[in-house]
Amino acid sequence: MYLLYGGPGNANLAPHAALQEAGLAEGSDYRFVKLDLKAGEHRKPDYLALNPHGVVPALVIEKDGSRQIVCEAAAILMHIADLYPASGLAPTPGSAERAAYYQWITYLTNTVQARFMNFYHADYFIDGSAGQAAVKAKADTALKEHFAHIDATLAKHGPYLLGDAFSAADLFLFMLTRWGRNLSRPARDFPQVGKHFERVLARPAVRRTLAIEGIS
Amino acid sequence: MYLLYGGPGNANLAPHAALQEAGLAEGSDYRFVKLDLKAGEHRKPDYLALNPHGVVPALVIEKDGSRQIVCEAAAILMHIADLYPASGLAPTPGSAERAAYYQWITYLTNTVQARFMNFYHADYFIDGSAGQAAVKAKADTALKEHFAHIDATLAKHGPYLLGDAFSAADLFLFMLTRWGRNLSRPARDFPQVGKHFERVLARPAVRRTLAIEGIS
Repeated sequence: MYLLYGGPGNANLAPHAALQEAGLAEGSDYRFVKLDLKAGEHRKPDYLALNPHGVVPALVIEKDGSRQIVCEAAAILMHIADLYPASGLAPTPGSAERAAYYQWITYLTNTVQARFMNFYHADYFIDGSAGQAAVKAKADTALKEHFAHIDATLAKHGPYLLGDAFSAADLFLFMLTRWGRNLSRPARDFPQVGKHFERVLARPAVRRTLAIEGIS
Repeated sequence: MYLLYGGPGNANLAPHAALQEAGLAEGSDYRFVKLDLKAGEHRKPDYLALNPHGVVPALVIEKDGSRQIVCEAAAILMHIADLYPASGLAPTPGSAERAAYYQWITYLTNTVQARFMNFYHADYFIDGSAGQAAVKAKADTALKEHFAHIDATLAKHGPYLLGDAFSAADLFLFMLTRWGRNLSRPARDFPQVGKHFERVLARPAVRRTLAIEGIS
């Protein structure tokens, strides 16, 4: 049994979609534990015991009487992909495709996702509203450059990040594209990124994930 | 044959140490291509053709007449660990230890390494020297909190990030601890982080890596 803690549409979205892509059913194989992030439930002692950083998601794996907690969206995503190789979410370790998969997931989490932190939580990086507005504006510019880079790559080597093969990296990009709806040029307005988003959105597992989280 | 592009002590350090841990010899199995980062060689067309983001490292894999470029330190590190399973740098995919390995590497790259970008390159995040000083100061505070968290974890579950087993995640932490020498409280002053650093530094493969990069 898995317990996936998160907030609707938050960083849990990609790992959650991976559980669905792996064929697991909410309510029996796993449970999505919806936190009220606006009410700060991720900063309360119950959740901090799972993730001392107070960020979502956290995955609790209960198996054979033991219990493991895994944090970090990219890590949970890669682990689910490894646990369910039949899902085809990850190329074989050691292959050229696996290297590209690691590269995309790393870049998406340490650069694009990190820039979204600057955009949505500028207060973590500087005090004062003027400084925060400046950090947010520069993040907006940088994120558009990153989506332009992704767009150009998809145009050359798409339709997915690894080419013809859909992978867990695409779930991560899908999540970040959704976060990019508030940029001065929404991420989906980049033509190939937009097509990629629609393609991933059309997957039954992804539609089920959105329905469970209660978002569209 | 591998070509690893980087600058002495830069983000190439952890992947480079992984090549050495895997038993590869510089000059025959791989070549370390030292870039002069102060002279901006990573921003010149030759290098931008390998990594359009103009950051190090980049790994070129030449094999059977084909050529693959892999970017992102964490991605290169994980790929090398997969290519050389006998090195013991990564736990088996699907295992509980593998989940912890992904979690550490993800956290180190998307949070700690990303904060070091704020610390060393505040100009990427805000214009003007006053704003940059403010971003750097907040990064200094945040990084000390992160090293305190790592220190507490090592005290409970060490001596390595995965407990008794050394892994590629430790090479990444070693690299970041070294970067932490300029914090207002140097990372090595956190007792367990300092011991971890000394332990990794004592490894023959790591000593060879530092010698090749020309750093101490």
